[in-house]
Amino acid sequence: MNEVRALLIAAAQSKPAGAGQDAANALIALVAIFVATKLLGEIAQRFRQPTVLGELIAGVLLGGSVLGVVDPTDPVIATLAQLGVVVLLFEIGLETELAALIRVGRTATTVAVAGVALPLTLGYFAASALGLAQIPALVCGAALCATSVGISARVLSDLGWLDSNEGRVILGAAVIDDIIGLIILAVVAAVVAGAPLSIGSISRIAGVAVAFVALAVILGSLIAPPVFRVVERIRAAGALGLFGIAFAFLMAWLAQYFGSAMIVGAFAAGLVLFKLPQRQEIERSTTMVGHFLVPIFFASVGAAVNLRAVADPQALMVGAALVACGIVGKLLAGFAAWWFRGNKLLVGVGMVPRGEVGLIFAQMGLAAGAVSAGEYGALMLMVLVTTFVTPPGLVWVSRRSPGHRSTVRDLPGQGGVDDLVAGTRRE
Amino acid sequence: MNEVRALLIAAAQSKPAGAGQDAANALIALVAIFVATKLLGEIAQRFRQPTVLGELIAGVLLGGSVLGVVDPTDPVIATLAQLGVVVLLFEIGLETELAALIRVGRTATTVAVAGVALPLTLGYFAASALGLAQIPALVCGAALCATSVGISARVLSDLGWLDSNEGRVILGAAVIDDIIGLIILAVVAAVVAGAPLSIGSISRIAGVAVAFVALAVILGSLIAPPVFRVVERIRAAGALGLFGIAFAFLMAWLAQYFGSAMIVGAFAAGLVLFKLPQRQEIERSTTMVGHFLVPIFFASVGAAVNLRAVADPQALMVGAALVACGIVGKLLAGFAAWWFRGNKLLVGVGMVPRGEVGLIFAQMGLAAGAVSAGEYGALMLMVLVTTFVTPPGLVWVSRRSPGHRSTVRDLPGQGGVDDLVAGTRRE
Repeated sequence: MNEVRALLIAAAQSKPAGAGQDAANALIALVAIFVATKLLGEIAQRFRQPTVLGELIAGVLLGGSVLGVVDPTDPVIATLAQLGVVVLLFEIGLETELAALIRVGRTATTVAVAGVALPLTLGYFAASALGLAQIPALVCGAALCATSVGISARVLSDLGWLDSNEGRVILGAAVIDDIIGLIILAVVAAVVAGAPLSIGSISRIAGVAVAFVALAVILGSLIAPPVFRVVERIRAAGALGLFGIAFAFLMAWLAQYFGSAMIVGAFAAGLVLFKLPQRQEIERSTTMVGHFLVPIFFASVGAAVNLRAVADPQALMVGAALVACGIVGKLLAGFAAWWFRGNKLLVGVGMVPRGEVGLIFAQMGLAAGAVSAGEYGALMLMVLVTTFVTPPGLVWVSRRSPGHRSTVRDLPGQGGVDDLVAGTRRE
Repeated sequence: MNEVRALLIAAAQSKPAGAGQDAANALIALVAIFVATKLLGEIAQRFRQPTVLGELIAGVLLGGSVLGVVDPTDPVIATLAQLGVVVLLFEIGLETELAALIRVGRTATTVAVAGVALPLTLGYFAASALGLAQIPALVCGAALCATSVGISARVLSDLGWLDSNEGRVILGAAVIDDIIGLIILAVVAAVVAGAPLSIGSISRIAGVAVAFVALAVILGSLIAPPVFRVVERIRAAGALGLFGIAFAFLMAWLAQYFGSAMIVGAFAAGLVLFKLPQRQEIERSTTMVGHFLVPIFFASVGAAVNLRAVADPQALMVGAALVACGIVGKLLAGFAAWWFRGNKLLVGVGMVPRGEVGLIFAQMGLAAGAVSAGEYGALMLMVLVTTFVTPPGLVWVSRRSPGHRSTVRDLPGQGGVDDLVAGTRRE
């Protein structure tokens, strides 16, 4: 029996349509992810916490630290997780009115710039004060910069804040943060590799990233309407929804190709399709695919957390300092746009989570030998705490806010978080 | 700029949430698959051919023989393709009434056994007559056995035959074929590896495969209703649909684990959930995820075809002989159940495609050194022709049939091919 099964597995592994063991591993990991995220998400809701918190905890439990069922470095799971965050940002873009985003543009930019400068400075000096060398301290400061828009956006949507000025400021600032974060990532990578830094090369990266979003939105708005008018005439089932997702994937790929981030491209794709008459059907299909892919992303973010690396005392001290710098820096950033009349504390809290973006910096530093295992543990702790503290923090601030709305949740089969968007677009 | 981009790519590749370049490659391959399959599917429809024929041709064009955009051996694409065929068989199972399948059980079993024995015998002797050694001839004969249920089921559904006695016989026979095919695969693999063959080991593999389907359906029917009553109480969006897919994935994994095929488990999962009161919502979610995953499967089957390996004259001759044996053998099998009152020719034609199942045998033979590159090319040609000839063949037989129904197509957002199923379950 066992020899035969070994032969079968060998046969399956050698087959051209690949699969066999790969697919079997993916199947069981996905089953674990779907069941665990939904169950823990439900438990989180019963405790009046956002479902995403439960999904992240599900990921930690499934990851290498506890059960070891989900390996976020597995190429298949990692890619599905990336497709998940791309679909998530596309969904968010599909519900974001560009004009409203531009109205909060000055506020969002101020919050974003302050939210990069303050944590970077605070983190660098705190790490130096605790005895870290210049380059590890720089990596630590840099890891404090970027905002994980996925987690905040999901919590804001769960709480009914996505279509508010605060929601738009956080979203806009987080997207700008991602662009700045990519520039800093490139700069830090160059410093770590010992390359000379030139103002010229930094400006070029920055220019490309900003130009990408602007060009994508302008060109996309010209090209998408006629393309989707043609697509609408394709009679095959699901064609419209599939072309919407294909458009998001294409924009995400272009963003990555031009040196920006995939999620920036996906968000821009959503912004572009917001005005299409076919938006509702595109959104309905995207929501279903999102239900399938997005939990994989959140579970992967959770599974990437290594609880053991966090347990070292020195790591705990540096980590605690970084957590403090990260939270204080982002909270202050929320107040940087002093003229903004909304809930500044909510904006600050919404900027706190680092999630997968912080993990990219930490992992890059470790891979390049720029940070030690202990410093890596400290960065992990910072990412872990800032990510997990945000959902309950947002709930708490939201409940104290006079503009607080009752919790609105997605209805299955409907246009997802779209139900929250006010105005004439209500289905 | 280029150094910076290289650094960014290196950084992305080293990150724990994997992705970066992997995900970017997957994104652009998926964009190509979605756009090409839908466009060529539409063109096929305009020529009154089933859309799946266009999707297969899209795969050939995207594969290594022509454009080289889609690599079906890439682990991510291969796994997504496998998830696609799992979801496809789950959808088919969700629309298959077990009682109706059992009513045609004797006919389906007869067709399946004849459809294995005739092509195997014909293929083995034809290959031997053309000068092939014993083991390559055995591999060739074995590759002629299995039926690619995915392609026939999709075409039958496109043509409105899925809910007919002919459709059920083809489906049932194809599933039995898959079980027999797995046994033969294990046996041939053992012969190729030089292992001694015992009647005992063969019977054990056969017993496991048959017992799996029976046990899965019996146990599943007992466990699924209470589980889904609990799942229904989870308030998170899309939970029910996601649990349906998780159930299908779990059954597919179990089938693979116990030495059967993933698609057999997925089909059994659909059969089990057919009777649930929550079937409609599960089916709606599955259809949307299927629109996303199934084209990846069909494009991969097409992309695995290497047109260059087919061009050798000796390969062409052996290939032509295998095509003839494969088609004649399966057509005759359609008439083996002489008591069956339906369209026997339609059943025979429906059994013709080998698709990915034939490719597994060919690839296994090549990897084990049991067949030469030329013989591999011949097997490729057989797989190619039998797969591509089936959709127009079914259309032709279907039009000549007195029981022919008009073409019914899926409606976007509806329960997929479910629209074809008659009776009280119409939404």
